[in-house]
Amino acid sequence: MVLTPGTRQRKPPQTLANCEVAIVGLGLMGGSLALALRGHCRALIGCDADEAVRRTALERRVVDRIADFDSAHDCDVLILATPVRTILAQLEYLASCAFYPSRQTAVLDLGSTKARIVQVMADLPPRFEPVGGHPMCGKETNGLEQAEAQLFREKPFVLCAPGFSSVRALGLTYEIIQVIGAKPIMLSAERHDTLAALVSHLPYAAAVALMRTVLAQDDEQAWVLASTGFRDSSRLAASDLTMMIDILLTNREAVLRALAAYRRELDMLVAAIESGEADVIRAALAPAQAKRAELFK
Amino acid sequence: MVLTPGTRQRKPPQTLANCEVAIVGLGLMGGSLALALRGHCRALIGCDADEAVRRTALERRVVDRIADFDSAHDCDVLILATPVRTILAQLEYLASCAFYPSRQTAVLDLGSTKARIVQVMADLPPRFEPVGGHPMCGKETNGLEQAEAQLFREKPFVLCAPGFSSVRALGLTYEIIQVIGAKPIMLSAERHDTLAALVSHLPYAAAVALMRTVLAQDDEQAWVLASTGFRDSSRLAASDLTMMIDILLTNREAVLRALAAYRRELDMLVAAIESGEADVIRAALAPAQAKRAELFK
Repeated sequence: MVLTPGTRQRKPPQTLANCEVAIVGLGLMGGSLALALRGHCRALIGCDADEAVRRTALERRVVDRIADFDSAHDCDVLILATPVRTILAQLEYLASCAFYPSRQTAVLDLGSTKARIVQVMADLPPRFEPVGGHPMCGKETNGLEQAEAQLFREKPFVLCAPGFSSVRALGLTYEIIQVIGAKPIMLSAERHDTLAALVSHLPYAAAVALMRTVLAQDDEQAWVLASTGFRDSSRLAASDLTMMIDILLTNREAVLRALAAYRRELDMLVAAIESGEADVIRAALAPAQAKRAELFK
Repeated sequence: MVLTPGTRQRKPPQTLANCEVAIVGLGLMGGSLALALRGHCRALIGCDADEAVRRTALERRVVDRIADFDSAHDCDVLILATPVRTILAQLEYLASCAFYPSRQTAVLDLGSTKARIVQVMADLPPRFEPVGGHPMCGKETNGLEQAEAQLFREKPFVLCAPGFSSVRALGLTYEIIQVIGAKPIMLSAERHDTLAALVSHLPYAAAVALMRTVLAQDDEQAWVLASTGFRDSSRLAASDLTMMIDILLTNREAVLRALAAYRRELDMLVAAIESGEADVIRAALAPAQAKRAELFK
């Protein structure tokens, strides 16, 4: 029998329990996912560019073994948990691995923007079965040291499964989402990016602008007075730079639209405050207050 | 002996332990202060416009007894813990109580803006010994139900003690700050208001603008995706409306200056994102990231 590239060589595993899962990027997201998946798959393989991270991952048994990217993608489920532009490069590399003698591999990415990634996923050879994913959670601090199995619990996990996604890959992804306790939400990549620009990338930009505003005053006493309100408002400004730069580069239009809308709302607030009229100010603040109080009870 | 108004009728108490302390306004701040002061003064008197709050305060022994404002100000330490414009009205009322046959009363307010309050304090009759205060802490939820003795612990407590503040009133205020575990910071009222506009009122306005931006999209799915980042960034938008309106009205100029500076920083961020250059974006984000990471370790 002649093996045609892309032909299935064995029966693909049907459940996570008998899958070899490789996680590329053992930062906050990849590390937390590894911890949450421990005991739920046949083997956990870790892959990271940083030698110290690889050593820690092994020492703390975050993964069962370490592999380089070239061998890590010979697995049942490949999870890409790096910044978006690195994911794009990895997907392009995978496109050149069509003839690698291997099994079928479900490819799930955890990238923060989805349109470009899903676009590149469409060009993967049939050996790879891609699904786009984005767990909407995080911390102000990054890295494996901050990873925790509970990170995804009750948090939204967006799935972008275009026409080319396989039932098998989607099934495994749903199983992963169930195991880590997240809430799956199916969205198109474009819709995800528009909404993420609003509820994630805009808050980041607002936090950075806040930090920049106080920094520009060059007044040490301001930091002394900064208390819990400032701490929470500025939290996102501490996000990993490479991750955020990749987001702003790959979701530029939606982020700029969100920022333009934000500046319009700021202008309306400024006008209300300038009026010096309690009723005008109240009308500008009240809907935001009511919705925020309702939102996170 | 003829009693002249303003004459001391008995030796003033020297420490908090033998003081009758009256707290006007038993919301988050006043209620928390009462809980933190329990057992540290001779008697705690509560005063609140809301009957249900007065009942709860008695039932839960937050205070020893309830009084109306007219009799509450006959005490050793009077603490005004209401929104700023209510404090202003209360101070104006106190100015008419010069001939009330009473002891010397230290008057400490917890108002969120200080310039106007300190201005009005200057006109109090000598029976009252005023000090301006602002504990920089809070929660997104308000009211006595949310009060807790630990609220002030390790938080900045700004003191505005103009020339007319007495040594006795300042001493008692320092004792209060020590008992509740806050960190005293002496500032002029003007400097407090400028800094508070930057690190407290601006973050509030930014959070409101964020909520308004997402509300304006009228897309329910956006709220579904809003996770921890959005939750923290928007937290201040849930602040009590009356408190915030009073702040925006009494600190208008400083808030508008802070908002103008914020919009300049947003414009610079927008320009960086528009450039589409990773290096330009990194340069715009990096100082904010470094400072935020250093600030709240």
